Amino acid sequence: MRCASLLLLFGLVLSGCGGEDPEDPLASWNTGPSKKRIVDFVRAVTTRGGPDHVPPPERIAVFDNDGTLWCERPAYFQLLFAIDRAKTLARDKPELWKLDPSIQAAIEGDLEGLAKSGEKGLMELVMVTHAGMTVDEFAKTAANWIETARHPRFKRRYNQLVYQPMLELLDYLRANGFKTFIVSGGGIEFMRPWTERVYGIPPEQVVGSRIKKSFLERDGTFVIAREAAIDFVDDKAGKPIGIHNHIGRRPIAAFGNSDGDLQMLQWTTSGEGARLGVIVHHTDAEREYAYDRKGHVGRLDKALDEAPERGWVVVDMKKDWKVVFPGE
Amino acid sequence: MRCASLLLLFGLVLSGCGGEDPEDPLASWNTGPSKKRIVDFVRAVTTRGGPDHVPPPERIAVFDNDGTLWCERPAYFQLLFAIDRAKTLARDKPELWKLDPSIQAAIEGDLEGLAKSGEKGLMELVMVTHAGMTVDEFAKTAANWIETARHPRFKRRYNQLVYQPMLELLDYLRANGFKTFIVSGGGIEFMRPWTERVYGIPPEQVVGSRIKKSFLERDGTFVIAREAAIDFVDDKAGKPIGIHNHIGRRPIAAFGNSDGDLQMLQWTTSGEGARLGVIVHHTDAEREYAYDRKGHVGRLDKALDEAPERGWVVVDMKKDWKVVFPGE
Repeated sequence: MRCASLLLLFGLVLSGCGGEDPEDPLASWNTGPSKKRIVDFVRAVTTRGGPDHVPPPERIAVFDNDGTLWCERPAYFQLLFAIDRAKTLARDKPELWKLDPSIQAAIEGDLEGLAKSGEKGLMELVMVTHAGMTVDEFAKTAANWIETARHPRFKRRYNQLVYQPMLELLDYLRANGFKTFIVSGGGIEFMRPWTERVYGIPPEQVVGSRIKKSFLERDGTFVIAREAAIDFVDDKAGKPIGIHNHIGRRPIAAFGNSDGDLQMLQWTTSGEGARLGVIVHHTDAEREYAYDRKGHVGRLDKALDEAPERGWVVVDMKKDWKVVFPGE
Repeated sequence: MRCASLLLLFGLVLSGCGGEDPEDPLASWNTGPSKKRIVDFVRAVTTRGGPDHVPPPERIAVFDNDGTLWCERPAYFQLLFAIDRAKTLARDKPELWKLDPSIQAAIEGDLEGLAKSGEKGLMELVMVTHAGMTVDEFAKTAANWIETARHPRFKRRYNQLVYQPMLELLDYLRANGFKTFIVSGGGIEFMRPWTERVYGIPPEQVVGSRIKKSFLERDGTFVIAREAAIDFVDDKAGKPIGIHNHIGRRPIAAFGNSDGDLQMLQWTTSGEGARLGVIVHHTDAEREYAYDRKGHVGRLDKALDEAPERGWVVVDMKKDWKVVFPGE
């Protein structure tokens, strides 16, 4: 008893001094309303006999990926992958690309020209670089890129540009009986090769956009081939549908950062009982990037407007996070 | 040591007498080659340092539902649900159904007339009875039916017509670090309301056929509505695709009973390392049903032909199972 009181006192003193509590599962989060809201929610749903208790199987938490778990600037990392891949493919078969303006722009690293080619051009780039191979071949290609390519500004591998406070949050939720899922507009097969190692989220808990596939017998064995056609877009209103199709339960907590997450937040937090909706607001141009309503990537406008009335926590990256990336 | 030897001797004597070993996790399976192949496989993949060891996250086992985990005669239970539902709907709005021959046949319990209306007629029946409501409303309807309707021959609730030996197998695999999934041609939302309680398989581990959905704001809240259009058919070549999209790993064990499971078995067992493919062969007209190559439901023809060359275990229901349904 005395010992516990002493520890408590010690903890309080430490926290009063701005020091770090090594026992704090959210050590990279500054003390403040955002952290408090998250911790209060987790306590409420895990308190047995409490009015907001939720049994473990129903403790489903969904996380957007781009801009929520890892950085999404200067462009979605998957687009940077597609550009690198177009360059590699062009090396082998230059004649194939000469006439396509979007592929040409990609090969020349001309992001502006690529943007000018519009949604159609981007789609073409993704199809050309992501289809026409088996799912195993694509998984190897994606895994290899993520382990070798470097971010232009931070000069780190892309999987090192995940947010340390969010990694802690994933661990903290799982330690409290939550099952954590990714629900991303990004390609499901672009994420799955590395999410288990980086986020502790296994492939079967990754929901994302998909291209069509076909099952084929080839050279005496069986393969699943990737086709150049969209199957499902897991963005905006697609997110609650993707959640429903993959998970089959309404989550009790959702984490996003842009208007692409609006419907996922609406669906999650309008359910009965205790609910948590969180938006990561990019406010830190120095350590990461600062953008919201005018973002060409990860635009946050409507969801920011709805946040107060719906009771969503808006995390201020600059104020709420002690560090942004691991090892800082 | 002496105690263990005595127990072992006692166990051996019991098993020699054909008595039941209360410690046997597969107590409803008769001793024989089918049971031995299953147990040997599980030992091989769980033996640390062994040549066939598989780390737990990769221990994915997939199960067909109709005819593999529960009975599928005299017709798929979901079709019987659709018929009951058509009757209920007709009671409220008889004028809506008078002109549709497939719905008319369903209402009159005329399975033959329904069969004559072909795939189009069946599809119409499913759409009319399964769409036009929210996913929550449908889940309640399905759960209510499964808890109240009775099988015409066995006079039991449908969720009591699950196979006891397969329930033991699910538990046995999970006790050995496997993650168990359903991969069924049946409707994903028809299964999810009850699979967790009956099979121990949570909604997020159920893969099935789907109709389209839309996310809507209605009366100030948010709903997911079911539309009268097919989204995905999780049968035949659709099964490996469904597995890939939902799970994202190739299973190491697959259990089926019909040609609808052929591609799932091919995909699973053609992977590298130890693999297990199992077919439940319905050979027991007395305790359940006997059918294979000429079945109008659950036809088993090509998969039965391929079983020997691909090394799939063919379970003989009559010989291999001590009991079929729980509590017998």
